[in-house]
Amino acid sequence: MLRTHHCGELRKNDVGKEVTLCGWVDTRRDHGGLIFIDVRDRWGVTQTVFNPAVSKELHGKAEQLRSEYVIQVKGKVTERPPGTENAKLPTGQIEVVAADLEILNTSPTPPFEISGTEPLSEEIRLKYRFLDIRRPSMMRNLTTRHKVTQIAREYFNNLQFIEVETPYLTKSTPEGARDFLVPARLSPGEFYALPQSPQLFKQILMVSGIDRYFQIVRCFRDEDLRADRQLEHTQIDVEMSFVNEEDILGVIENLMAAVVKGVLCREIKTPFLRMPYDEAMNRYGSDKPDLRFGMELRDVTDILKGSQSKIFEESFAKGGVAKGILVPAAASFSRKDLDDLTQYAKDFGAQGLAWFKIQDAVDSPIRKFFSDEQMNRLTRELGAEKGGLILVVTGDWKMVCIVLGALRFHLAQKLNLIARDQLSLHWVVKFPLFEWNDEEKRMQACHHPFTSPQPGDLHLLESEPLKVHARAYDLVFNGTEAGGGSIRIHNRDIQKKVFGILGIEDKDAEEKFGFLLKALEFGAPPHGGIALGLDRLTALLLGLDSIREVIAFPKTQKGICPLSQAPSPVSPRQIKELHLTLKA
Amino acid sequence: MLRTHHCGELRKNDVGKEVTLCGWVDTRRDHGGLIFIDVRDRWGVTQTVFNPAVSKELHGKAEQLRSEYVIQVKGKVTERPPGTENAKLPTGQIEVVAADLEILNTSPTPPFEISGTEPLSEEIRLKYRFLDIRRPSMMRNLTTRHKVTQIAREYFNNLQFIEVETPYLTKSTPEGARDFLVPARLSPGEFYALPQSPQLFKQILMVSGIDRYFQIVRCFRDEDLRADRQLEHTQIDVEMSFVNEEDILGVIENLMAAVVKGVLCREIKTPFLRMPYDEAMNRYGSDKPDLRFGMELRDVTDILKGSQSKIFEESFAKGGVAKGILVPAAASFSRKDLDDLTQYAKDFGAQGLAWFKIQDAVDSPIRKFFSDEQMNRLTRELGAEKGGLILVVTGDWKMVCIVLGALRFHLAQKLNLIARDQLSLHWVVKFPLFEWNDEEKRMQACHHPFTSPQPGDLHLLESEPLKVHARAYDLVFNGTEAGGGSIRIHNRDIQKKVFGILGIEDKDAEEKFGFLLKALEFGAPPHGGIALGLDRLTALLLGLDSIREVIAFPKTQKGICPLSQAPSPVSPRQIKELHLTLKA
Repeated sequence: MLRTHHCGELRKNDVGKEVTLCGWVDTRRDHGGLIFIDVRDRWGVTQTVFNPAVSKELHGKAEQLRSEYVIQVKGKVTERPPGTENAKLPTGQIEVVAADLEILNTSPTPPFEISGTEPLSEEIRLKYRFLDIRRPSMMRNLTTRHKVTQIAREYFNNLQFIEVETPYLTKSTPEGARDFLVPARLSPGEFYALPQSPQLFKQILMVSGIDRYFQIVRCFRDEDLRADRQLEHTQIDVEMSFVNEEDILGVIENLMAAVVKGVLCREIKTPFLRMPYDEAMNRYGSDKPDLRFGMELRDVTDILKGSQSKIFEESFAKGGVAKGILVPAAASFSRKDLDDLTQYAKDFGAQGLAWFKIQDAVDSPIRKFFSDEQMNRLTRELGAEKGGLILVVTGDWKMVCIVLGALRFHLAQKLNLIARDQLSLHWVVKFPLFEWNDEEKRMQACHHPFTSPQPGDLHLLESEPLKVHARAYDLVFNGTEAGGGSIRIHNRDIQKKVFGILGIEDKDAEEKFGFLLKALEFGAPPHGGIALGLDRLTALLLGLDSIREVIAFPKTQKGICPLSQAPSPVSPRQIKELHLTLKA
Repeated sequence: MLRTHHCGELRKNDVGKEVTLCGWVDTRRDHGGLIFIDVRDRWGVTQTVFNPAVSKELHGKAEQLRSEYVIQVKGKVTERPPGTENAKLPTGQIEVVAADLEILNTSPTPPFEISGTEPLSEEIRLKYRFLDIRRPSMMRNLTTRHKVTQIAREYFNNLQFIEVETPYLTKSTPEGARDFLVPARLSPGEFYALPQSPQLFKQILMVSGIDRYFQIVRCFRDEDLRADRQLEHTQIDVEMSFVNEEDILGVIENLMAAVVKGVLCREIKTPFLRMPYDEAMNRYGSDKPDLRFGMELRDVTDILKGSQSKIFEESFAKGGVAKGILVPAAASFSRKDLDDLTQYAKDFGAQGLAWFKIQDAVDSPIRKFFSDEQMNRLTRELGAEKGGLILVVTGDWKMVCIVLGALRFHLAQKLNLIARDQLSLHWVVKFPLFEWNDEEKRMQACHHPFTSPQPGDLHLLESEPLKVHARAYDLVFNGTEAGGGSIRIHNRDIQKKVFGILGIEDKDAEEKFGFLLKALEFGAPPHGGIALGLDRLTALLLGLDSIREVIAFPKTQKGICPLSQAPSPVSPRQIKELHLTLKA
């Protein structure tokens, strides 16, 4: 090694040792004829001193040093003179009096200061990612990500899970999202696809008797990038045989406890709350509710029925509901605030937003349509006190839930009601198996087509599929979906029935999923699993908003890597070899 | 869980316990009115007994059981009757007397027996991979692979390496092999490439100060598949900063010792032998010599000079050499054997093969061209005894080495001279930096363009590049290259010089490797690394010839997955979205 110690290592009891350090020039201070160079590496910073009294030549060499030069310094560890210790640094008791210096590499002035704290544009950060990663925050993010994966691997390993690698060049079976395609040069006109998940292969591994599988694996989706999505993301992917829901939930709860303990040194309680989907929607207006604050939704249909309001009465007549939330201490909202909220509600699909300021009297543009009794009951039902604001939406149940759920979260953020230091982990369970896609006029799977129906609902599968619940579960971490999974269908006939309901014809099913159907025929065990988003999980643990903070080389919203400039044009020869032509 | 124990777990001291087992029907034997079902899972086999005296109905249900049905059996653990124990099975002392049976799934008769030992065609195995993996040998192979990765990860983790994930959608920089391309829908006419290795990104991570990086990572090469290559393979990828060759070699030697210990329970000695490339070629005719047997090459140029043989004299006149190997006890080879060897030598580029049988006299078709003195010296130089066979090739040094190296290995296999139970691990070091590509009339990198020249050879870089040695090293495991790496160039000017020698013009270098050159400018530390082939390494540890044995879902020589039928045609809409058309 070119060094004897790293830069975060030396302490008072190393005083007297001859050491060699390597690293980057973090800061340089010229003071009292001496030059102080803080040398930085991944582990920390150590102060080195160049004294012209020790060597004029060496001091002269140190004068050449600029920020981010790479140097090797030899010298003796000494105690810092009293009064010059730095209590903030673990190495702050000592310094290294330089006896030799080698400049291993130079650097122009970087576009931003590595130890600086000023906010930087993401564009600059990604373009100079090799400098950005030198910053302590990015170093911590990547180290934490590493830690999460190591804890997860050790955890699964101890439980006798086997990590099996599944192919990245696989078959295109466009279900949910769009596949990335890879032209197959050796099979003209044909394509591999990059996997959206190893779903089929992990089920095949259960049929193979692997019994307990995990993999930390990249998944690919050629989506139009919404906020904070990436074309490739990493999953902690798990599948188990001969299990029920509770077995998988238990395994993942203990994993989360180990991760939280290992990364944050905090204890979390298991088991986590299991909340049925219907309850989550009814109470929080979300299938991934954030339980770090209240503001629960209340059904006020019965209370508001029989008013003079045409809008409400028409809604109820069509089978609609009315639900409300109480925003504490928000009666002071301005007309503009309320107009903005109304627009927000409309963006999520509401026809309008009814508001009631609870003051000495109830203040609302639609107050006059309701009786005093109705207003009293509304106020009581929501537990509103003077100064509170009640927001009510009416219409189709699901829309009402979603709109109020969105308002609830929006207002909690705005009013700073979220207990940000809390870790809130719980499950949402018993999702519907299917949902109706009104645009495409067809049934679609809420999770994916391999999810098992609840055994008690099997008789409804063909007659009333929308009433069938799934053996599916989502892990919700601080109001974000951190993972999801299900008990799978292990019976070939049920699988074919579900394909049928989804409008996947037999021929199509054979072509796309034939190998799964064949595998299900040859002795498939009951099995189930889950996939956790590693990027998201790491970001949540670190309290970061963007997964790009925990990915070494992320892409932009346009799918571009500002560092390498991928994607890029390729040579005509390369395209020709793939039996393709570019469309003009 | 649907079970209380797995099928490899129950022992004599479990007798009396009520247990539930799940697994596959391995074998069924009807004997003396009883039905014996061996239930199998990943961990082993347990015998269950169905007794009509216990329950007629249950016995009747057991009669329906066929091979590979998936069942759940409840019952009591009992000692097997004396004389019926099976000493070969860890569970052979007990059996489970069934009290309940559930058939979880059925299976048609599988195309091959899971516990069978008859050889199977690879086609059938890959098509029914979900059955093939149930076989104990495949289960062992995948478990071993898992073990290797876990040992490697724990090892690197303990040394404070960080596992960093690098992108799979990256930039096409066609150097060695052909890139797989991925059309970028959001950037019409542009492509991502799947990485042939994370080389550039791991160097960027060193510039970023990550200091110690590893990753177990998939790599992609769109090659015409030679024997035992795959389109995607897995690398244990390592990079370190502030190191010399010896630091990396030491880290990898200890890794190999840990892996061999963990997987095979065997000790291997470190440090490994380091053999310079020139010596490996001279003595073994290979840059990855198998040291588990002798048959070293000897230079016999001086001995054979000045004969009547035109072929030898002409070869020497052109600067050629002559080298020979001794094949022990092979004087009995038939004319046909020797003709075959000659053809073999010609296939590797020799003009011919001279052979000398050492009998009472030397027997050779070209004996007459040489003096007695020459024959005596030849025999002595090669240490030949009566019954031996000396093979000699003359011509260009490298060709002579390669031909004899190939013959050496070929004959050692044929004559069964390889000590197959030995583990032979060593390094080949000091490769040439460049080699001349005679077909394309250009210089090419022996390893890759980022390999550092030996400091002592720097002055030859522009004047005599072919004489420059590289700071490169290969790990050789039983005569197979298990990995390779180098100290990299960390100086931007040297990197540009090397690009120049390789005929990569400045504009091209900027376009392809601009981000590396930029990173090298901003304070790149001295660094180096290595990549080990995980598939190959696992196969070597298990003594398997083919890496397909240690890959869950490999592809055929034609790049096809017989299980999923990838690659496949895709819909016209998918192709259109990528701004492509298929060539007719």
